Amino acid sequence: MAARQEVKLFGTPNSPYSRRVEIALNLKGVDYEFVAENLSNKSPELLEYNPVHKMIPVLLHNGKPVVESAVIIEYIDETWSSGSSILPADPLGKANARFWAKFIDDKAMPVIRSIRRFQGEEQVRVIGEAVELLKLLESELKGKKFFGGETIGLVDITANFIALWIGVYEEIMGIRVITKEKLPVLCQWIDDYLNSSIVKKSLPSRDQLYEYLDLQIKKRR
Amino acid sequence: MAARQEVKLFGTPNSPYSRRVEIALNLKGVDYEFVAENLSNKSPELLEYNPVHKMIPVLLHNGKPVVESAVIIEYIDETWSSGSSILPADPLGKANARFWAKFIDDKAMPVIRSIRRFQGEEQVRVIGEAVELLKLLESELKGKKFFGGETIGLVDITANFIALWIGVYEEIMGIRVITKEKLPVLCQWIDDYLNSSIVKKSLPSRDQLYEYLDLQIKKRR
Repeated sequence: MAARQEVKLFGTPNSPYSRRVEIALNLKGVDYEFVAENLSNKSPELLEYNPVHKMIPVLLHNGKPVVESAVIIEYIDETWSSGSSILPADPLGKANARFWAKFIDDKAMPVIRSIRRFQGEEQVRVIGEAVELLKLLESELKGKKFFGGETIGLVDITANFIALWIGVYEEIMGIRVITKEKLPVLCQWIDDYLNSSIVKKSLPSRDQLYEYLDLQIKKRR
Repeated sequence: MAARQEVKLFGTPNSPYSRRVEIALNLKGVDYEFVAENLSNKSPELLEYNPVHKMIPVLLHNGKPVVESAVIIEYIDETWSSGSSILPADPLGKANARFWAKFIDDKAMPVIRSIRRFQGEEQVRVIGEAVELLKLLESELKGKKFFGGETIGLVDITANFIALWIGVYEEIMGIRVITKEKLPVLCQWIDDYLNSSIVKKSLPSRDQLYEYLDLQIKKRR
């Protein structure tokens, strides 16, 4: 056993990016201290550790900051060999996982997040676009339980927004994006993922998230 | 020596993303076949190997496609141990390199690429914004020859747009973004980088790039 390590996560409880890091740490069985940031009054520590983006999440490991959720997850996988591997061992498997994680961040999430800015026919069109992107992602599950195979990997962690956040937005806004008819495999994945014990203990409760997002949407109106 | 491998790069000669992959392959001393794509009439191979984005660059290695320049560069580093390492060996060094590579792609390049859409005072403002981002990047060089230290690494490769493309745009458009007064360390890096033998053989000539970008800009007017 290594000497006691300092592991601190600067995040917010309702951010999918911050929660990704919690899933990764919990998959590895790493003890950490969660430091809840107030994004309208950021702590001097956050600004010191992430002077470029001034954003959460930041992982502080023995005094050294690591920034950006995608970067932090790979750091965690490379630093702690305990628990299951988050990325495959072979270069091609790694490349594939990184490709789909990037697809979620750069392609799918911007479209999904934009849905709430539209109304009526325009909204229907954007939802259709989001579903097409999610179908591409779904094709990657092809017969596997998780994107990572039998265990939760990089793409599963990155997709936490799809598993929990979208459903809460659907409820608040009275829309449907992910349905069993259109995305049956993804729906099964959401069930398996949210029922996995590590994910369950790493995500906010649906009620907590509903309360938070509902307030955010009302503030913007 | 391993058996003869099939390594094909589907790219275009004037794309910084495609050229990144060429630098990485040349750093590792990997022989490859360059397949020049016509982006207004993409080959069936490109569409087959990259059905999601339908974009270059695609690396084909023994029949398996790897997509997205950032993903391809890491794949090359993990697959070929010949030549110099593109990423540091330690997790913290890796995280730092990935952070700055992401910074170039997600923060700096979008602002720099937007300059040509502005005129007059607005353009001056956007150039100022670009310089501030490049100053942040410059701070990462602090006393090192390359971002990778003594050798060219992930961030240097990712920054090829900054080393060559920006200067050509400046000439065509009659503007100045990178000056010795504002960015002296970055200017020195550009000199060292463009004079490195591997980079020299991996990038288009300035004249070729000028001719290409000049035509592109005239077409858009």
